[in-house]
Amino acid sequence: MANDPLSLTFAALADPTRRTILARLAEGEATVNEIAEPFDISLQAVSKHLKVLAAAGLISRGREAQYRPCHFEPARLEAATDWIARSRAVWTERFDQLEQHIKQLANDTEREKEV
Amino acid sequence: MANDPLSLTFAALADPTRRTILARLAEGEATVNEIAEPFDISLQAVSKHLKVLAAAGLISRGREAQYRPCHFEPARLEAATDWIARSRAVWTERFDQLEQHIKQLANDTEREKEV
Repeated sequence: MANDPLSLTFAALADPTRRTILARLAEGEATVNEIAEPFDISLQAVSKHLKVLAAAGLISRGREAQYRPCHFEPARLEAATDWIARSRAVWTERFDQLEQHIKQLANDTEREKEV
Repeated sequence: MANDPLSLTFAALADPTRRTILARLAEGEATVNEIAEPFDISLQAVSKHLKVLAAAGLISRGREAQYRPCHFEPARLEAATDWIARSRAVWTERFDQLEQHIKQLANDTEREKEV
């Protein structure tokens, strides 16, 4: 598995449980027990998901030994959106050029008719 | 591995080679040979990446038996951006509320000083 920051971010987002956890943490910090509550999975499984999210920099953990609350970290999501936006921008630009080209062709045909 | 559409999209994006291929296809359709050209990997490896991108709906393949050119499909990327945007919006809203709260506290302190 690729381990560059962007690949880690997308890999961490490639799981519905992790996305739900992240959406929960975007609403405010929470402990592992609070995060695990709505899920029908073991605390161990939740901890594993949190490790993946933390390794991807999408969350950070507090240092208090017992609770270690989890915080949402939006910066890496921004990098992910930026990558997607760039790819879409290239495509949209090409699409606009194509549209322009088609309009030009239509105009030329119209003018030929007039002549 | 989760196989809901959004998870497939993020998993497909979790690889730098696949992201480069997708960026290439956003510029215009290409055959497997054209796509493979800049990479130092086998045609077989490129084909495997294309299968992952196609399974995630990020590209489609033409039906012409020999060349089967690959096309960029932007719709799934939009779904991915939408998910990220929603999580960030929740977080930004909470952040704005916090900022508002801090400003209010500062105003109250200021007023107390005046009294």
